[in-house]
Amino acid sequence: MAQTVADRRDVDFVLHEQLDVQQLSEHDTFGEFNKKTIDLIVSEARNLARKELLPYLREADEEGCTFDNGKVLVPKAFHRAYDLFRKGEWIAMCDDPRWGGQGMPATVALAANNYFNGANFPFMLHNILIHGAGKLVERFGTDKQKNLYLKNMYTGKWGGSMLLTEPDAGSDVGALTTRAVKNDDGTYSIFGNKIFISSGENDLVENIIHPVLARIEGAPAGTAGISLFLVPKFWVNDDGTMGDFNDVICTGIEEKMGIHGSPTCSMALGGKGGCRGTLLGAENKGMRAMFVMMNEARLHVGMQGFACAGASYLNALNYARERIQGPALTAPKGAPGVPIIQHPDIRRILLTMKTFSEGMRSLLFYVGFLEDLMTVSSNDADKARYQGIIDVLIPVAKGYVTDRAFDMCSLGVQVFGGYGFTKEYPQEQLLRDCKITQIYEGTNGIQAMDLLGRKLGLNNGGAFMDLVAEVEKTIAAAKKESLLTPLSDILETTLHHLKETAGKLAGDLGSDNILAAFAHAHPFLDVTGDTLMGWMLLWRAVTARQKLADKPQKKDVAFYQGQVMGARFFITTVLPVAQAKMAVIQTGDASALEMAEASFGS
Amino acid sequence: MAQTVADRRDVDFVLHEQLDVQQLSEHDTFGEFNKKTIDLIVSEARNLARKELLPYLREADEEGCTFDNGKVLVPKAFHRAYDLFRKGEWIAMCDDPRWGGQGMPATVALAANNYFNGANFPFMLHNILIHGAGKLVERFGTDKQKNLYLKNMYTGKWGGSMLLTEPDAGSDVGALTTRAVKNDDGTYSIFGNKIFISSGENDLVENIIHPVLARIEGAPAGTAGISLFLVPKFWVNDDGTMGDFNDVICTGIEEKMGIHGSPTCSMALGGKGGCRGTLLGAENKGMRAMFVMMNEARLHVGMQGFACAGASYLNALNYARERIQGPALTAPKGAPGVPIIQHPDIRRILLTMKTFSEGMRSLLFYVGFLEDLMTVSSNDADKARYQGIIDVLIPVAKGYVTDRAFDMCSLGVQVFGGYGFTKEYPQEQLLRDCKITQIYEGTNGIQAMDLLGRKLGLNNGGAFMDLVAEVEKTIAAAKKESLLTPLSDILETTLHHLKETAGKLAGDLGSDNILAAFAHAHPFLDVTGDTLMGWMLLWRAVTARQKLADKPQKKDVAFYQGQVMGARFFITTVLPVAQAKMAVIQTGDASALEMAEASFGS
Repeated sequence: MAQTVADRRDVDFVLHEQLDVQQLSEHDTFGEFNKKTIDLIVSEARNLARKELLPYLREADEEGCTFDNGKVLVPKAFHRAYDLFRKGEWIAMCDDPRWGGQGMPATVALAANNYFNGANFPFMLHNILIHGAGKLVERFGTDKQKNLYLKNMYTGKWGGSMLLTEPDAGSDVGALTTRAVKNDDGTYSIFGNKIFISSGENDLVENIIHPVLARIEGAPAGTAGISLFLVPKFWVNDDGTMGDFNDVICTGIEEKMGIHGSPTCSMALGGKGGCRGTLLGAENKGMRAMFVMMNEARLHVGMQGFACAGASYLNALNYARERIQGPALTAPKGAPGVPIIQHPDIRRILLTMKTFSEGMRSLLFYVGFLEDLMTVSSNDADKARYQGIIDVLIPVAKGYVTDRAFDMCSLGVQVFGGYGFTKEYPQEQLLRDCKITQIYEGTNGIQAMDLLGRKLGLNNGGAFMDLVAEVEKTIAAAKKESLLTPLSDILETTLHHLKETAGKLAGDLGSDNILAAFAHAHPFLDVTGDTLMGWMLLWRAVTARQKLADKPQKKDVAFYQGQVMGARFFITTVLPVAQAKMAVIQTGDASALEMAEASFGS
Repeated sequence: MAQTVADRRDVDFVLHEQLDVQQLSEHDTFGEFNKKTIDLIVSEARNLARKELLPYLREADEEGCTFDNGKVLVPKAFHRAYDLFRKGEWIAMCDDPRWGGQGMPATVALAANNYFNGANFPFMLHNILIHGAGKLVERFGTDKQKNLYLKNMYTGKWGGSMLLTEPDAGSDVGALTTRAVKNDDGTYSIFGNKIFISSGENDLVENIIHPVLARIEGAPAGTAGISLFLVPKFWVNDDGTMGDFNDVICTGIEEKMGIHGSPTCSMALGGKGGCRGTLLGAENKGMRAMFVMMNEARLHVGMQGFACAGASYLNALNYARERIQGPALTAPKGAPGVPIIQHPDIRRILLTMKTFSEGMRSLLFYVGFLEDLMTVSSNDADKARYQGIIDVLIPVAKGYVTDRAFDMCSLGVQVFGGYGFTKEYPQEQLLRDCKITQIYEGTNGIQAMDLLGRKLGLNNGGAFMDLVAEVEKTIAAAKKESLLTPLSDILETTLHHLKETAGKLAGDLGSDNILAAFAHAHPFLDVTGDTLMGWMLLWRAVTARQKLADKPQKKDVAFYQGQVMGARFFITTVLPVAQAKMAVIQTGDASALEMAEASFGS
């Protein structure tokens, strides 16, 4: 069998040929990350993923998590995997080495995460939660907080979570009711109930540090009155030793459709009056802190969804090459069966899965690469420009990517036919696991509103236009290649329509038509994503054509030709449809708004 | 809370206002099925579905089926439900009363099945299998076979299944290897292994009659050598009593993504040499018999998928009306939260789910209505015309409907946010259960090939054009209504493009481009389905406008206005995109075919 989890050739292509990530090593910050080092890291991640994470994907799904009187047991196999993950120092790949981080470029960490999440995304949720919580401490913590918690988190000795959601405060975080009361010693007593808390309780770690959103008594209503606190499961004494249990109780875990290896906890804080936390960052600035972390978290969710889709593609490809079923369509009667990859409809599905998942890989790695460019840049204008483009791309990298990733996982089941519906193959689990990525960290409806309502107008539309300018660079490069000119023409027209559509919606946002604009927010996310996929695939094709001119090895020829063919397939079949969707958005149909509530059904 | 399972007003609308199904009672065959009787039947089905099937949906999903040494236990709650189902005589709704059937119109049975499947589709699988097996006996059985088996099947005393698939013969049925050897007494000894057999073994019934596809020794290879046999679990003596166990052994059941209440069995026939069957129909004509039954089976799978989507819609609607989250977008800062049905993106999702599911209901009921018209018609040309339209519609009713139904179930999860991913609500189960409808009874890839390869050219394209003529009738009716003229114009243009696209593909089928045509088979299924959805919704709008002219009650006004608004939403936002997809098909992109196999990945 060929590769699983993620196609190594393609991961390397994006890192070294499309993005040329080793250029980062020219800067001191990433000086040690030359190509050899990068390849070593990615190979190690790949081995760990394939040998230690992938084999337990199904087992962990079936075993699930167990709740017993406040305790939560994760799947047994996760303990060994977690030990290896800690030993490999994979939790804080990009973070400050002073605190146990590895200081590597974000792009390289994304490549490693591609393998990890493609192999066992439910397992990876534990680690991303620890890292996210740690990052909050690193960004907003006092020296004391960092000294007490951070190294233990980044090295995986202690866990982390994120306590935001409450039963009546999901998409509307500002509605939360968890209270914080200041004590004489400067700590806060916390009272409240949280739900949907991934890794809120588990037996992988001896302590868990919970960042908690709560409202200090007397603080304003809504998001303006929300503060962030660090609430350890066991209190941490000033000398770093662990103290008493801190009255943070897991009251149950959800039964759910997928990610069974990741416990989704309900948490009660201060039920016995004994829960204390320390303020993280400034009073009433909790939402600001969450927003700062949001880009990273949402990019990571995009990675989770994409990794499922990418793994599903490779499984489907391998199956289609081996599964004999039916003779070739043009074969004479009685001809023997052939591998189903020879059937046109299966080829169409496979090429759809390939182009979408490869386009997603490029898009996600590109966002990481922009972060790295920001890190090494000494020019404030450049930094601001990179940040703007990242901000525009995040709702696409989360919302569009996970929407399409779910579609791809569904196609990945279809290729297997009846077998795809059984637990004998990983396809159905990838589909079930992938579904959560469309929901958490802000539903994709929220992502669409973010793109339209916040990001489109960022810097007076300058951020969006900076992104457009990047796309135009690729179009210009493709025009120099006669073979790619027809494709660059289609992308150029699509981009033109996208700008028009964005302009129309931006106008509506500032008018009485604001609700109609938001009724088209998700379609706008769709067409923006389609255009950016087209861009990434054309960029790949341009790169591949350049490489083909250098007369590469036979195996590479097939790879590069596949890039050109994939771009042609996507750009000539998906983008014209995206243009029609843009035209529909511009007509501004308001039926969904005008519909009387009673007309939806009695 | 409002309605669940299926919207009664909408079911009645299709039956009595769109299709005017009681006109069938003018014919002797359906003489007793006047409106009052129809409403009584549908009400009874609705009550049974909501009170006795829906409450056990989740319980049965969690309990699942149990395999123990050849025996299969279905969920406990199914026993009571099955007793009620039998007592209500719901298994053979449309069949010959001589054999225990109810002789009702297919359209009315579809309405009942809408409720049953929307409430508990895994339970319903048992019944549809019994009915399908019985129908084979009714259609192809000798008098003796009918007398021995049929009444016990139609009344649910005995079960039924369908033994087609083998490990290496799925989509390619002709590859099957199960053998039949003729005995001196005229029976056949059967030897082989089957997989993916729904209800192949279960504890609901005392005997199971298995129709089995097998190859008689010496018969030709491929589908031309396949015969159909009746193989009872326990041999049935000539006097109707049950004899010895017939060496039909269930060797295991699949663990799978959904429909956990329906056992998916592996079956070993004749492992000890003791399995006998009788020929059903003529030697080597087994595939012909299966094809005759296929329309009914595929229509029913469309119903299963649609019923999941319809139930998911009503759940989402009820939730959106009750779930408070976030203030209205245009409200001043600090405004209180509102039910999420007031948010534009949720409205867009709900209207999408409403229009697709209602269009599906109309399409499926319409197919049933055509069957009924065929039944009552005494004109052979009419009968042939109806049959042709049905034949064209079946791959759409199965393939397109279940594709979109799965999408709608996915949207139905999104409306619930994080809760949608939990087992606390039915949304995730509807999504999981629905997935199988895209796969079994011929994957949707097979449906697409059926539409393109068989149905488009049926009667030299006459069947397709007969369908087109029906669409044109609605367009003409809509043109008389100024409010609907813009919509009928869009549908007319779309229909024109569909004919062009069909013509282009039909040309390709008869040329060297045949593989390219099949690479566009699934997109062609998509656009055909979109066009037919637009038709059904315009037909609904025409009907609703007529009813509005009669000054109906306030509640009905809301319903009818919803129909007009739904048609506007769908036709102005979905059909222009479908037109673009048709243009793409016509460009005939062959990338998926030209792609070297190595280029898909190493």
